[in-house]
Amino acid sequence: MKLVIAIVHDEDAHGLIKMLTASEFGVTKLASTGGFLKSGNTTLLIGVQKERVDSVLSIIEETCKTRKEITTTTSLMGDNSVMGMPLEITVGGATVFVVDVEKYLKL
Amino acid sequence: MKLVIAIVHDEDAHGLIKMLTASEFGVTKLASTGGFLKSGNTTLLIGVQKERVDSVLSIIEETCKTRKEITTTTSLMGDNSVMGMPLEITVGGATVFVVDVEKYLKL
Amino acid sequence: MKLVIAIVHDEDAHGLIKMLTASEFGVTKLASTGGFLKSGNTTLLIGVQKERVDSVLSIIEETCKTRKEITTTTSLMGDNSVMGMPLEITVGGATVFVVDVEKYLKL
Ligand code: NI
Ligand code: NI
Ligand code: NI
Repeated sequence: MKLVIAIVHDEDAHGLIKMLTASEFGVTKLASTGGFLKSGNTTLLIGVQKERVDSVLSIIEETCKTRKEITTTTSLMGDNSVMGMPLEITVGGATVFVVDVEKYLKL
Repeated sequence: MKLVIAIVHDEDAHGLIKMLTASEFGVTKLASTGGFLKSGNTTLLIGVQKERVDSVLSIIEETCKTRKEITTTTSLMGDNSVMGMPLEITVGGATVFVVDVEKYLKL
Repeated sequence: MKLVIAIVHDEDAHGLIKMLTASEFGVTKLASTGGFLKSGNTTLLIGVQKERVDSVLSIIEETCKTRKEITTTTSLMGDNSVMGMPLEITVGGATVFVVDVEKYLKL
């Protein structure tokens, strides 16, 4: 048995929990925030048999990978019209630790 | 030294912390919720010398084991009387991971 | 790779996160409270290469060590004057677990 501790961005947490649950992995969601200047992280605990660790890691990778997204900022112009500007931002990313479990109990 | 990570139902958490504290185990309570469709879980971190792990597990087992309880639902009858109906529900349950601690520091 | 799980007092958490971040350690802050009669703890997860574990432990030790502080209590006297009384209190303290990480993923 292994314990996967995954720290993901809040916006990816819901989708990831959905994907993991669909594959019948048990997930526990801890509230968390990032460090000093970061914010909005969620920590997940996922208990998993060692043969299925890679399957969990693939799902996390797929759901949370760092990726570019286009958002639109709007600016007020001098003539009072509003101009939309496409802006590329980076979202996603995750930090994942896999830890050995010596004893596992399911009551 | 071992670290016991116990995910228990909210309604069992208070009693479990009380029992563990009475046996002089140090307990830290993390807020948590279950996965996609579950809710109301509490995660506890319990640092414990390896000789006492089984004692912690027994306390968790005793306090949190899955069990049937009778609750009473009330229904409004056609003649405006209220009828109480006994309903058997399953409560309790826990997921417990024991992890090895390489270094332990108490400041 | 190692995972440092540090349970510190709330009042030390901010300073500790600042110090760890300044030394470029990644820190995730979990909300937590102590057990039965304790309150106001913060749990931090710090992923760290094994060569740098001692450096993390030193920072925690320095920032969170148990120490005496003088606080002032004020009492209302019989003549309606207020008297300040110096009171020595113990603050700080931390519980730290270092756990081995079998697999580490940074997406
Ligand atoms: Ni990120
Ligand atoms: Ni349950
Ligand atoms: Ni303390």
